[in-house]
Amino acid sequence: MSAPFRIGVAGLGTVGTGVLRLVEAQAELLAARCGRSLSVVAVSDLDRTRDRGVDLTGVEWYDAVALAREAPVDVVVELIGGEDGIAKAVAEAAIAAGKAVVTANKALLARHGVALARAAEAADVPLAFEAAVAGGIPILKALREGLAGNRIDRIYGILNGTCNFILSSMETTGRDFDEVLAEAQALGYAEADPGFDIDGVDAAHKLALLAALAFGCTVDFEAVHVEGVRHVAAEDIGYAAELGYRVKLLGIARLTEHGLEQRVHPCLVAADTPIARVDGVFNAVVAEGDFVGRTIYEGRGAGAGPTASAVVADIADIACGRRAPAFGVPAEALAPIAAAPMERHRGPYFVRLVVVDRPGVLAEIAGVLRDERVSIESLLQRSRSPDEPVPVIMITHEAEEAAMMRALEAFAGLESVLEPPTMIRIEDL
Amino acid sequence: MSAPFRIGVAGLGTVGTGVLRLVEAQAELLAARCGRSLSVVAVSDLDRTRDRGVDLTGVEWYDAVALAREAPVDVVVELIGGEDGIAKAVAEAAIAAGKAVVTANKALLARHGVALARAAEAADVPLAFEAAVAGGIPILKALREGLAGNRIDRIYGILNGTCNFILSSMETTGRDFDEVLAEAQALGYAEADPGFDIDGVDAAHKLALLAALAFGCTVDFEAVHVEGVRHVAAEDIGYAAELGYRVKLLGIARLTEHGLEQRVHPCLVAADTPIARVDGVFNAVVAEGDFVGRTIYEGRGAGAGPTASAVVADIADIACGRRAPAFGVPAEALAPIAAAPMERHRGPYFVRLVVVDRPGVLAEIAGVLRDERVSIESLLQRSRSPDEPVPVIMITHEAEEAAMMRALEAFAGLESVLEPPTMIRIEDL
Repeated sequence: MSAPFRIGVAGLGTVGTGVLRLVEAQAELLAARCGRSLSVVAVSDLDRTRDRGVDLTGVEWYDAVALAREAPVDVVVELIGGEDGIAKAVAEAAIAAGKAVVTANKALLARHGVALARAAEAADVPLAFEAAVAGGIPILKALREGLAGNRIDRIYGILNGTCNFILSSMETTGRDFDEVLAEAQALGYAEADPGFDIDGVDAAHKLALLAALAFGCTVDFEAVHVEGVRHVAAEDIGYAAELGYRVKLLGIARLTEHGLEQRVHPCLVAADTPIARVDGVFNAVVAEGDFVGRTIYEGRGAGAGPTASAVVADIADIACGRRAPAFGVPAEALAPIAAAPMERHRGPYFVRLVVVDRPGVLAEIAGVLRDERVSIESLLQRSRSPDEPVPVIMITHEAEEAAMMRALEAFAGLESVLEPPTMIRIEDL
Repeated sequence: MSAPFRIGVAGLGTVGTGVLRLVEAQAELLAARCGRSLSVVAVSDLDRTRDRGVDLTGVEWYDAVALAREAPVDVVVELIGGEDGIAKAVAEAAIAAGKAVVTANKALLARHGVALARAAEAADVPLAFEAAVAGGIPILKALREGLAGNRIDRIYGILNGTCNFILSSMETTGRDFDEVLAEAQALGYAEADPGFDIDGVDAAHKLALLAALAFGCTVDFEAVHVEGVRHVAAEDIGYAAELGYRVKLLGIARLTEHGLEQRVHPCLVAADTPIARVDGVFNAVVAEGDFVGRTIYEGRGAGAGPTASAVVADIADIACGRRAPAFGVPAEALAPIAAAPMERHRGPYFVRLVVVDRPGVLAEIAGVLRDERVSIESLLQRSRSPDEPVPVIMITHEAEEAAMMRALEAFAGLESVLEPPTMIRIEDL
């Protein structure tokens, strides 16, 4: 058996502590699988005194960047977080010192992933980040290795457990966003400052990484069209259900005639599709390959255990000498793909208007859509008591985003339309 | 870039031809991902003349074993099939000649997998078989590498697309087994001689391989309890649906206090579980790890494209120099785990009896269960016209298999019970 494989962990929060716990609990198993023992020998954290419930005897404390630079370790695990600052300095210092880097930091990678991959290749050290996307699901390995023989046509998924929990709860309980968010925060499924999750930024980071791996292109986070879930109303989830749909926050990347489309936004998905049935804090990714067809991967997207599982899978690969380029092909082979403008997106749309109940209103609405050449697939109008505002729910045939946007603007300008129009894109899966 | 990686394919049936097609179609992609070009340089098949629609210019024909022994290739891909005979000779000859082996042959591996793994390790050549289990789904890689940090508590799945297609069709159409089987055969989803699939043998081969990888034990195909789908009646599927269940042929492996339980049989699974929703020819595997929790993998379980995708993923790993022991740990570290006797299995059961409609019959039935200490969770009795036989459907609480078997035998001996009792196990997922 080879010499022990030495691990340094920068950042002992929930995930870092989880990694220590896993490496300790599965010592025998990991030694059998890796052909050598794994051992955490160095750690860093601002707080060196808190009792984390793990045995740190014989483990050396460092400052984060010093750990990367000086600690006698084979791999540096960056779990500090943040797209710049210390996390980036740690990754760069580790690579410069000829050490492998494992990280769960999607923000860092979405901004600097290609530069880090280039640096790692130049230094001939591995860089791996399974834990950065979809928690415990080994989706990056599946794309990079398991589906290596496929061109990916489209990849999409539920990439943020907080949003999925909120949308699932809104559907089950019929309650509104704010109330459900407060509950998610109480349960620890949403942060005190939830913007990063619920505004779709976290999902967008992950999507940009998935797209780079799936399509062999440079990471282009800036090009991701991002919308969160704040504006999804319980009412819309209810109407969607009546029409045979569920509402999910999806990240979707696909190659179109206009270039690479990357978007994160709430979607109506048919209730009988696999992705529609992924509930609560679970994540799921669907990769469609030209030979393999549709493959689906589902599991917990966050939490100490699942994230530590992914981090340790990367560590085990490195300890075993299994190497793959960080983004599936050498960094120099990653070519940018032009971003498809969101205005050129085509698809069906769900639209809800609240209108006054009087003759001619429907004709006005239909006229707006006719002028934009958007045709209606189905329309639902519920009469309430006389003189009460009436909801009109429409599902369109495939239309162009630009036309739909003009129609929404026109709706908003109609005197008979009483509230800002609601629009949710429908995704054909 | 390194020298081209030379592939020999033994067996040019549907899958073999699919591999040639994939390697040709994705030449550029594979070269980028592997850092070297892949090239099929040698093939074997009994039929050398059939037009397979692939370009064989410059490809050398061999007899199968001669290909393994003499062809100038880096990897021998065994796609001949069969648990002994030529397939085994090809794998052994390739290993003896110091060549890597990739195979899709679950029958061969279920019988001789550990011996082949030992031989491959002794010769220091890779042995890989992603395509042998669940077609295009990279489930072996996920277990071996992606979940390397986990102890697996239970692994189960829909491992045979033919059975799943038949059960799905029976449910949708309400038609009986024989009729749906004939349709599956007409569609090419079932073989002319379908016994291997519908009697559960194929699923059992795959389950034995999954269990070895999941639990780090020797492959014990003989210990798998196997039942197929021939005896599932459309009526039972209907009653199951009424009770909130669907019927699936599952392969299930788990560690119990009695040892390793491995079983393939029709199951009632709650309709809201992910596995219940896998329809048609799709396969799915659920792996439950102690850190990662529940992970689910779904995709096409058969067909030229998906199987070729899995075969080429193995080839790409080998071409890239990524190595892992065939069963996750070195073959000598695989220890047998005692088989849990099926009579010790515990779980709830679905039972359907057809009885005469007269006073006292229900008391007789209840008496049998009382004597075996099996308690009833729910009972459904439908009155039909007077004097017609009456179906009685029961769901039991958790009971022991041995007690249940005695109860079924006692039911069969009752004069008031008109048809052989139907029993389907219920799986808590």
